[in-house]
Amino acid sequence: MTRFFLPLSLLLCLPDAAFAEAAMKDAVDTVWVITAAALVFFMQAGFALLESGMSRSKNAVNVIMKNYTDVCLGTLVFWCLGYGLMFGSNPSGWIGNDHFFLNSAENTEFSILFFQTMFAATAVTIASGAMAERTDFRGYLLGAIGITAVIYPIFGSWVWGSAYEGSGWLAQLGFIDFAGSTVVHSIGGWCALAGIIVLGPRQGRFSSNGAARMIPGHNLMFMALGGFILWVGWFGFNAGSTTAADPLIGLITLNTQLSAASGAISVVVLSILLGRPVLASQTVNGSIGGLVAITAGCASMEPMYAIITGLIAGAFLLTSIKVLESFQLDDVVGAVSAHGVCGAWGTLAAGMFLKGNMFNFDQVVVQLVGIAAAFIWAVPLALGMYFAIDKWIGLRVSSVDERRGLDYTEHYELGYPEFQQDKLLHKNMEYE
Amino acid sequence: MTRFFLPLSLLLCLPDAAFAEAAMKDAVDTVWVITAAALVFFMQAGFALLESGMSRSKNAVNVIMKNYTDVCLGTLVFWCLGYGLMFGSNPSGWIGNDHFFLNSAENTEFSILFFQTMFAATAVTIASGAMAERTDFRGYLLGAIGITAVIYPIFGSWVWGSAYEGSGWLAQLGFIDFAGSTVVHSIGGWCALAGIIVLGPRQGRFSSNGAARMIPGHNLMFMALGGFILWVGWFGFNAGSTTAADPLIGLITLNTQLSAASGAISVVVLSILLGRPVLASQTVNGSIGGLVAITAGCASMEPMYAIITGLIAGAFLLTSIKVLESFQLDDVVGAVSAHGVCGAWGTLAAGMFLKGNMFNFDQVVVQLVGIAAAFIWAVPLALGMYFAIDKWIGLRVSSVDERRGLDYTEHYELGYPEFQQDKLLHKNMEYE
Amino acid sequence: MTRFFLPLSLLLCLPDAAFAEAAMKDAVDTVWVITAAALVFFMQAGFALLESGMSRSKNAVNVIMKNYTDVCLGTLVFWCLGYGLMFGSNPSGWIGNDHFFLNSAENTEFSILFFQTMFAATAVTIASGAMAERTDFRGYLLGAIGITAVIYPIFGSWVWGSAYEGSGWLAQLGFIDFAGSTVVHSIGGWCALAGIIVLGPRQGRFSSNGAARMIPGHNLMFMALGGFILWVGWFGFNAGSTTAADPLIGLITLNTQLSAASGAISVVVLSILLGRPVLASQTVNGSIGGLVAITAGCASMEPMYAIITGLIAGAFLLTSIKVLESFQLDDVVGAVSAHGVCGAWGTLAAGMFLKGNMFNFDQVVVQLVGIAAAFIWAVPLALGMYFAIDKWIGLRVSSVDERRGLDYTEHYELGYPEFQQDKLLHKNMEYE
Repeated sequence: MTRFFLPLSLLLCLPDAAFAEAAMKDAVDTVWVITAAALVFFMQAGFALLESGMSRSKNAVNVIMKNYTDVCLGTLVFWCLGYGLMFGSNPSGWIGNDHFFLNSAENTEFSILFFQTMFAATAVTIASGAMAERTDFRGYLLGAIGITAVIYPIFGSWVWGSAYEGSGWLAQLGFIDFAGSTVVHSIGGWCALAGIIVLGPRQGRFSSNGAARMIPGHNLMFMALGGFILWVGWFGFNAGSTTAADPLIGLITLNTQLSAASGAISVVVLSILLGRPVLASQTVNGSIGGLVAITAGCASMEPMYAIITGLIAGAFLLTSIKVLESFQLDDVVGAVSAHGVCGAWGTLAAGMFLKGNMFNFDQVVVQLVGIAAAFIWAVPLALGMYFAIDKWIGLRVSSVDERRGLDYTEHYELGYPEFQQDKLLHKNMEYE
Repeated sequence: MTRFFLPLSLLLCLPDAAFAEAAMKDAVDTVWVITAAALVFFMQAGFALLESGMSRSKNAVNVIMKNYTDVCLGTLVFWCLGYGLMFGSNPSGWIGNDHFFLNSAENTEFSILFFQTMFAATAVTIASGAMAERTDFRGYLLGAIGITAVIYPIFGSWVWGSAYEGSGWLAQLGFIDFAGSTVVHSIGGWCALAGIIVLGPRQGRFSSNGAARMIPGHNLMFMALGGFILWVGWFGFNAGSTTAADPLIGLITLNTQLSAASGAISVVVLSILLGRPVLASQTVNGSIGGLVAITAGCASMEPMYAIITGLIAGAFLLTSIKVLESFQLDDVVGAVSAHGVCGAWGTLAAGMFLKGNMFNFDQVVVQLVGIAAAFIWAVPLALGMYFAIDKWIGLRVSSVDERRGLDYTEHYELGYPEFQQDKLLHKNMEYE
Repeated sequence: MTRFFLPLSLLLCLPDAAFAEAAMKDAVDTVWVITAAALVFFMQAGFALLESGMSRSKNAVNVIMKNYTDVCLGTLVFWCLGYGLMFGSNPSGWIGNDHFFLNSAENTEFSILFFQTMFAATAVTIASGAMAERTDFRGYLLGAIGITAVIYPIFGSWVWGSAYEGSGWLAQLGFIDFAGSTVVHSIGGWCALAGIIVLGPRQGRFSSNGAARMIPGHNLMFMALGGFILWVGWFGFNAGSTTAADPLIGLITLNTQLSAASGAISVVVLSILLGRPVLASQTVNGSIGGLVAITAGCASMEPMYAIITGLIAGAFLLTSIKVLESFQLDDVVGAVSAHGVCGAWGTLAAGMFLKGNMFNFDQVVVQLVGIAAAFIWAVPLALGMYFAIDKWIGLRVSSVDERRGLDYTEHYELGYPEFQQDKLLHKNMEYE
């Protein structure tokens, strides 16, 4: 550990001030990218809390273990494979083909890998909330590996690849997705959609005549704390995507804040207008919908349009939740709506509300192409993957295990052993 | 999203190194301001946890919904109105008159708006804790709008206005309030005082002979976690108020840390000396009192005096809590004492312990003028506002609803549906 | 509060660009050090949650009060004494002898003191988890003072001293411990070991025939949230130890992430291979073991070796937990294993896997000398200290108080008064 600050001599004795300038710039950019990446990592805690808070207590440990384990697995898989597929040299525009197992590189390159690892971990964890309370632990982890190793990075290479040579075909078309409304959130949301199609709804979620029944989450404090943490992490997510210290991050974070606030207020106002109760869980989801939606256009929109983007995201969120329910699709936390649908809307908004080039028809068409490409790529592939996992080791737990709760059956632990009366029940159930 | 770091060519080809220098400085300042603002935003989660943890479980969702919604509303209102009133051109010294609905501006200006939005959200959320467990949701939100749109920004313009032209009358007098002991915390605390005067105490808080009865909070873990989060957020609050990357933030954060620690230790030691139990809730409040108190003088005091400021803040806190109780004023979390009273003390301390100019009589008088101005401005205005809300839509919920808990009556949700035995009670109460 | 960014004139009118450059560098370094320090402070919340979550609810307030109070006391003690002993001028190489009560200094020096205060608070809080559920509150705080004032800073001066003149004897040998696998974590872990030796196990932890019985923690959500918070704080812990903005922090944070993930995956895989359940608590501890282990070598190892370091840390963790149990040593959270043992392993790994100089025999010997020095210094001293505290005021609470729970007997508060059925029990026990 170096005591105090490094000596300046190294910088000052350089023949040319430009070199010192460049060294300083690298240092400052790194500080920002790493700070932002730490905020993005923190979003994992937000997802874990939000998802376990909206599940029943008998599955709380299982949810949080899925979140904890998928970031660990995702980190290693992305280092081995995902980073190379997504950011490696990409002459075809369809896939990266080097920089796997990145072991020697410039420090600035390590920064980017670190930052991008956090993005991959975000994409992969989105599905866990939708699929909560009935998914086999090993089956879930296999799916997580599939997303990190294949589905997410290959699509990402079309938009953000390459960091080295070549560029993705969607990038070449001029597709705008600054921080990943589509690349991260829609892809994650569409994988979640495939997951809940294959899984089917939780027992009791829909009555025999098809009417939706609400299954209340066990801890709305965790849900709301998760919402706050996701929100603060999103400042890193969106503004870190500059990958450089740049005054532009002022506009980006302001837009992020305005859209998140508007998404929540939109849900509150619509709920009142529709005569429904203002649910805490939907209000929080409204802000997440706003955050997802502004992710694509946060760097290229005026604040006024960030507000409009967020307000409309809230409406899409509520509508989408109803539509999914009408198909008897059971998304425990609303991830498909908040990430998939609001991500698609935000990608469109980024094209429509482009500063200095509003409502340009060509740009809007390009955005629609990107949105469609994400859906067409992710849904069939994830459906196939989850069907294969289901055949192979079983994606859904047994009916008895689902009733007992996955904490007991998968992990031999309870989230709150002193407070769960069912623990006695569990004991008896061992003899079933 | 730009891959890797931006090319240096732009900087290096400039005819004059000074321009590159200026660009770099803008970038670095922005990085710091945005990082600090993210920390300040995180304080919202701290307030939500601390306040809901110190309330009963039947009101936990309501508390957290007030916190979640007021930051959303506050963000939009401050963008529309508050920022212009506070930081707009201020020729009179009493009110800003432009820069409403800020839509096109320099990126550095967006950074400041973003940072200041977080400050406004802090000021407005202080009242929610004091007024918990008996305030109507719509009534509370109207009050929050009043604080963000009028009470907070107009007072702020006297001290911190303007970012453009002119300056506030208190600033012209030489009033010292670096990061807002008075501007943010006392104003918030005095609004809370007005709120609890209008509301009256919770049922059962004082016995018929006037003796105070403690109503224990339902989750002291959340309370303490909220304290930790507020503490970490305060580093952004105080040190971000430089609005620039500056080595001075070393002194500021050190003073912040020392005063917070001293505030808590002061409460612990005084509790022992007075033969009272060392309550976790009061210990955490002691650190918050220390944090509030150092906010005014954190940049202009030596560390030794930061410790003294914190120690005395702890004594003020305990005294103030007792005094409020003796007037049968029911402040659920001690917000009036921690923010209002400790804010006033800290503003005085900033004058008394000014480095290089200790105990200057003129400075102390100016500080007292500012402290008095805050009280005289905020208390009558907030009293009037809350009385008007009470007349118009009712500030306090009905007695039956208060007994049932606001989660059920206002939000149709319970914080911990599996663990609250009263949920059955609630069910029966529907038939009352 | 300065409005907007500081004027550039000061910088630009300097005769020499080098001065402007130096001022900028100080500012940027400070921004990074303070950001990192804020993250390290946040680790306190992580420790508090992890430790209280793994304790029973009757001791939850006590655990969190120990964490809250030790950071407060530690802050003041380190300012008075610890900083001078550790970083003061150190002509002998064995102890610092000035810079106590640091009151006037350069701002950059205040930054370092602030950063180092957070490190001292980390070292001291490690013991609280191991010793939870049976330690007297005053006795614990006395021990915390002993660690912050003597055990931690004096050892630290051997490795990291001095910031002024002279350098520690271990530093002179070439001992590598970049961010404190040994200096912070092993020292903390060995103090914890001494503590649990003196205390003895909790009632019921070992059956009469010596078999270990698991006592489940009351809130695994808090435990896991604590794990996430520690992880995010560690980015500041390791990468802040550059004490300068430097592109190297990219490598450091990447290694930190890879080792943490590997530690957790190692525990998951080993548990499966050994036919044991994959416990959430051990998985989280696996990531902490990985984080502790990479702390020494995070700046001087290639990513591949960070993964290996983490994988082996997971194995050490599981083995060490079993070995401690076989000696009937009761470590509530596994702190001795995660911090002490994994810290020693990581220090060795830093020598073995040194980039450009792998498996150098001399370096490995130096690492072993440092590891041994920490053990030989800390264990006997902490044993003596805890024995003395035990004689003087009693380190362990009475058997009745342990059964009742420390929240009630030490703090007159309950963590969840509405949910703890034992509160009625407590009431009756008052008449025992």
